[in-house]
Amino acid sequence: MKIEFMQRAIQLSLENMRKGSGGPFGAVIVKNGKILGEGWNQVTSTNDPSAHAEVVAIREACKNLNHFDLEGESEIYCSCEPCPMCLSAIYWARIDKIYFANTRQDAANIGFDDEFLYQEIVRPLPDRKVPIRQYCREEAQAVFTEWMQKTDKVLY
Amino acid sequence: MKIEFMQRAIQLSLENMRKGSGGPFGAVIVKNGKILGEGWNQVTSTNDPSAHAEVVAIREACKNLNHFDLEGESEIYCSCEPCPMCLSAIYWARIDKIYFANTRQDAANIGFDDEFLYQEIVRPLPDRKVPIRQYCREEAQAVFTEWMQKTDKVLY
Repeated sequence: MKIEFMQRAIQLSLENMRKGSGGPFGAVIVKNGKILGEGWNQVTSTNDPSAHAEVVAIREACKNLNHFDLEGESEIYCSCEPCPMCLSAIYWARIDKIYFANTRQDAANIGFDDEFLYQEIVRPLPDRKVPIRQYCREEAQAVFTEWMQKTDKVLY
Repeated sequence: MKIEFMQRAIQLSLENMRKGSGGPFGAVIVKNGKILGEGWNQVTSTNDPSAHAEVVAIREACKNLNHFDLEGESEIYCSCEPCPMCLSAIYWARIDKIYFANTRQDAANIGFDDEFLYQEIVRPLPDRKVPIRQYCREEAQAVFTEWMQKTDKVLY
């Protein structure tokens, strides 16, 4: 952990909020002690609800590494505790350590849904705010079976 | 709910898995009864760990709508129950209804981490598999305060 990388993440959150890019969030990904990717919230300026700072940083870091897996001496510095979307993306990217500054409660206090989402996504399906229903499992199962039998698949 | 949209999502999962795009997952976003965006897993072919079918479909739908908010007569059809990253992205995009075919347990059975992620992201921070620590809250708080005072911000 190096404070300078966290300060960079916070600086990105401030500068790009002022430029009107999106919400006040920044992130930096470090691998082997060097910055591999940076990101800041771009939801409203790029019309992409997934363009949170952490996801943007992951996309850039993976592009720079030319791989979808960041495992090995990798860290992410987030100016705020990642929301469930970003936290999951961090896990899918196999980042080794996570550092954050503001908390999810801090985010809730300025109007963001992070804390609500953490509660919502583990509720049983019938209790969710957004209705969610299952159909056509049998047809979809055939595709999973074919995946299992596929000999040239790339695992991730 | 229209079965034909779910069949399309499953078709996308099959076709693109066969092409080697990524895992066996497809998604379709419908707004006002018409398809607004389609997606399929592209993690390994584009080196983007966030390029799950649902996230790709959300990006395309928002691009086509020219807005970051899909609320209003919007549905997403997923060939598999969304992982926590995708489910959160669906909430951030304000999609009204969610339909899925395969379950998260089905995904676990063919080697994907969805079920693990659902358990992991609600664990207390000290109990997580990936270490997560807080630093520099005071410096980051100043940015949130400035966001609250910002008069020309775009809410999302």
